[in-house]
Amino acid sequence: MKNFIVPVEKLISAFNKLPGVGRKTAIRYAYFCINNMTEEEIKAFADALLTAKREVRYCSVCGNFTDKDVCSICERGDRSLICVVAEPKDVLAMEKVTDYLGTYHVLHGLLNPLEGKTANDIRIRELLDRVRDCAVREVIIATSSTVEGEATAIYIANLLKPLGVKVTRIAQGVSMGTDIEYVDEATLARAIADRKEL
Amino acid sequence: MKNFIVPVEKLISAFNKLPGVGRKTAIRYAYFCINNMTEEEIKAFADALLTAKREVRYCSVCGNFTDKDVCSICERGDRSLICVVAEPKDVLAMEKVTDYLGTYHVLHGLLNPLEGKTANDIRIRELLDRVRDCAVREVIIATSSTVEGEATAIYIANLLKPLGVKVTRIAQGVSMGTDIEYVDEATLARAIADRKEL
Repeated sequence: MKNFIVPVEKLISAFNKLPGVGRKTAIRYAYFCINNMTEEEIKAFADALLTAKREVRYCSVCGNFTDKDVCSICERGDRSLICVVAEPKDVLAMEKVTDYLGTYHVLHGLLNPLEGKTANDIRIRELLDRVRDCAVREVIIATSSTVEGEATAIYIANLLKPLGVKVTRIAQGVSMGTDIEYVDEATLARAIADRKEL
Repeated sequence: MKNFIVPVEKLISAFNKLPGVGRKTAIRYAYFCINNMTEEEIKAFADALLTAKREVRYCSVCGNFTDKDVCSICERGDRSLICVVAEPKDVLAMEKVTDYLGTYHVLHGLLNPLEGKTANDIRIRELLDRVRDCAVREVIIATSSTVEGEATAIYIANLLKPLGVKVTRIAQGVSMGTDIEYVDEATLARAIADRKEL
């Protein structure tokens, strides 16, 4: 016996397909399903997979997850104010902390030439169309402060400015409650450069 | 919107149930399923879960995974020689490297008082029954060289000796191809204590 029996191997290779899951982790997950989960839990798991794949689509306006044509945020939000984020989870983060009343635009990725992610692989064209078509007054770029996030922000800003729309970037600096002595150089440099008059 | 839409949340909480999977990882898995997996892959995934739960049972003799009543190893193996392991994956490891022709006994765990794992929670009674009932000549204890593995090995050995069966423990010492200077103290101490005459 060089492998587990077929049904076990099949489950392992299914988990093995998930991002960052190697064979050892896949085996651990498969075990747990077989040993610790009830018939009902497994049924629910399988059903969740099928339902999500069947029902979840992207909002035709902002590209966020939705089960309708236009997502709830686009329906109620101020469409003249667009916050650009990389992933649906970023929309969640924004909604959790802010009383932001505008809409979003989910790029579904960031520019990353090394991984072959170019402007055509993320939803930049759709953003330009939105700005052109529906009287947008401001676009807030809320991509991460990573190399990819910065590059994408600058790239988008350069495309939007000619359209005469106000383009802003979320503030970068020392995060709240942080002790100055522990702040990394890059962040501190940025915080000084972008200092505000009190 | 403080949460994802229902079908997405349901999938996330399903993944969230897996061992060592927090909400962030669960979100990552759910994304991957929704964005990167095809309808067919999802169907296969769901089917693998249901089939594994439905078809996989434990061998009535050794406790290893099987889809029959008695597993293929117990059918063909020498039942008078039993190798005791903690988990089905350990059977796989043994089968991969050795030309061992005996059978196995899967404990499905190790003694771990701190986590409330006592002798009654792992398949020790079944092992004793096997030794009593079917003329076993040797029991090789192949649990890990961890505190739990050692404790379990000693515990089982003490129960088996009175039954007049030969009980052995897999050799512990410096692993093959290891540079002495990098071997930890405990292992080296054990390797010296258990030295063999050439």
